[in-house]
Amino acid sequence: MKAALGDFTVRARSGAARRGTLTLAHGVVETPSFMPVGTAATVKTLTPHDLVELGAQIVLANTYHLWLRPGLETIAAAGGLHAFMSWERPILTDSGGFQVFSLESRRVLDDDGVRFRSHLDGSEHHFTPENVVAFQETLGVDIAMALDVCVKLPASSEEIEEAVRRTTLWAERGAAARSRPQTLLFGIIQGGLDEGARTRSARALVELDLPGYAIGGLSVGESRAEMDRMTRFAAELLPGEKPRYLMGIGTVRDLLGAIDAGIDMFDCVYPTRCGRNGRALTRGGDLNLRNAVYGRDFRPVDERCACTVCSTFSRAYLSHLFRAGEMLGPRLLSYHNLAVLLDLVAESRAAIERDEWPAFRDASLAALARETPNPT
Amino acid sequence: MKAALGDFTVRARSGAARRGTLTLAHGVVETPSFMPVGTAATVKTLTPHDLVELGAQIVLANTYHLWLRPGLETIAAAGGLHAFMSWERPILTDSGGFQVFSLESRRVLDDDGVRFRSHLDGSEHHFTPENVVAFQETLGVDIAMALDVCVKLPASSEEIEEAVRRTTLWAERGAAARSRPQTLLFGIIQGGLDEGARTRSARALVELDLPGYAIGGLSVGESRAEMDRMTRFAAELLPGEKPRYLMGIGTVRDLLGAIDAGIDMFDCVYPTRCGRNGRALTRGGDLNLRNAVYGRDFRPVDERCACTVCSTFSRAYLSHLFRAGEMLGPRLLSYHNLAVLLDLVAESRAAIERDEWPAFRDASLAALARETPNPT
Repeated sequence: MKAALGDFTVRARSGAARRGTLTLAHGVVETPSFMPVGTAATVKTLTPHDLVELGAQIVLANTYHLWLRPGLETIAAAGGLHAFMSWERPILTDSGGFQVFSLESRRVLDDDGVRFRSHLDGSEHHFTPENVVAFQETLGVDIAMALDVCVKLPASSEEIEEAVRRTTLWAERGAAARSRPQTLLFGIIQGGLDEGARTRSARALVELDLPGYAIGGLSVGESRAEMDRMTRFAAELLPGEKPRYLMGIGTVRDLLGAIDAGIDMFDCVYPTRCGRNGRALTRGGDLNLRNAVYGRDFRPVDERCACTVCSTFSRAYLSHLFRAGEMLGPRLLSYHNLAVLLDLVAESRAAIERDEWPAFRDASLAALARETPNPT
Repeated sequence: MKAALGDFTVRARSGAARRGTLTLAHGVVETPSFMPVGTAATVKTLTPHDLVELGAQIVLANTYHLWLRPGLETIAAAGGLHAFMSWERPILTDSGGFQVFSLESRRVLDDDGVRFRSHLDGSEHHFTPENVVAFQETLGVDIAMALDVCVKLPASSEEIEEAVRRTTLWAERGAAARSRPQTLLFGIIQGGLDEGARTRSARALVELDLPGYAIGGLSVGESRAEMDRMTRFAAELLPGEKPRYLMGIGTVRDLLGAIDAGIDMFDCVYPTRCGRNGRALTRGGDLNLRNAVYGRDFRPVDERCACTVCSTFSRAYLSHLFRAGEMLGPRLLSYHNLAVLLDLVAESRAAIERDEWPAFRDASLAALARETPNPT
């Protein structure tokens, strides 16, 4: 039987880790799933063909950035975001809330949304719980995110409570504004590191019976231990039959921890940002390829990696490209770094299916702990 | 019968245009051939796989740049330049003379070669007619270029004569220094726009019976008409049974003119430099994709182009990438621009084989003259 739009099926479990399938308008996403970030309708340096080759099943784009440039009218005229960027698989867009809040002095917040000035040209804009849903439906994406209030940590309990209150109000208004069944609206729970606030946020959003839920407001300044604790706590507040998405997570260690907590989806600029800066992700930890020691190291970036970059080029060659300021360096290393995370989730799915998740997790963490050569 | 190393066979002629095959250590080059420029062991933004897909049969790299960074010891340790950059097809290296001479205040010239300071760190180096041959042999390239004196135009006849004298002396010394049969040494004729000087330069170098000859010192400040005239004049001074290489040529119009003069090989940074700047080569002339008019133009970059970029993306998308400063823009447009020139030489070869070169040339020039929308 063909799965219906929005269906999420947990096919296997191993500990709290789960292996599922999420059916979206542009295809099925196998979870746990890592979403490469394509902020401005491009996963930086890479083509859609590269992403398919890497096994990416869904990418993330950003409503705030696309709203400002090239503008929704252009993307609508192209036939939607998929056609504009030539990506045929699912897309999730962030609402833009996170980006708007990081403007700080350039934005004013009230219960009706947020007024802000563009970081590009200072022009004024107004995002509301309703219009961000309409914008994302206009983009034609598979998953839209509700507008939320993301608070930097540490924060006072008043700030946390106010963020939870507005995030709840906005999720209700966003849900009521939906008009396109092919675009699923996910809610975002907030609450910082406060278990009570997280619980209230989750309960209110779960009442809306949205097709998926994200944990927002983590990886924003707290320690890894605090993030781990709250990820586990928040994951258990969310319905087991819906996909759980931890926003902004993207190191090997963080992915392992989040999958272990029962999270299904992740996104992060980390692999591609590192790729542009010469920092290589490997199964044994990160390497800074600009380091002189790699200038004559003719091994692949990661000896345990099967990606095209590792089977074709050496650390010495990539090191040369970065030191010479050659754009091929960022391109090759972005590709490899995504391969590491996309392979990690694929291997995690297989380990969960075999009910060998704890052993896979421990072996992967041990490899990281054992090596980490030349961290920068 | 298998062709021997260095064999050049003219298989067809149409007017003065010729279609040949040049047998090199890493494969056969079909001429007329355009060589993408990979100065620092990378054709900027592109992989060797891209270049094979584009039909590139040979690339050019630069001895001066590689000597300074990463250094010949690193490339030798990698197993040579082919292994270092993972390119299995032929490579031609420029001697570095052109780059050294453009340092101007940083170099001192005498009959024994040129002493210069690195543009990277000010370190002192000495290139001699002998050591540049040894360097290129160490790189393991298929074609090495002799050290020459390239004079900027306009120049006095004394400067031109002195450049011809030294270039001749250095070609003799370079030829005597050869020690690796798999690396063919090509000579470079100089002489500016002076027919007498060009004739003396060509006669002296032809006496050395080198496996190929380049025309240097053009496209360095003179008018197109002057370049065309001297290209035709110089081509006829060179032996018909050896490949003729016009250095630094790479627009559609210049390639058509040079093939018409009986030139077999070309190189130029033009397509890739334009690709990084948002300037698109098309059969109808160049377009500046940063121009606002392309923001909602959903046609391919060149409607007559069969490359992957043109079959996948729109002008509007590329325009967005350039305006957003996204690295995918330079990558996609470098790819397309090389496709235009590599397709042009492939179509030229086919037209020569059919003995329809004059009609092909005229139709191609007419398309350029008719359109040229939005030149920058």
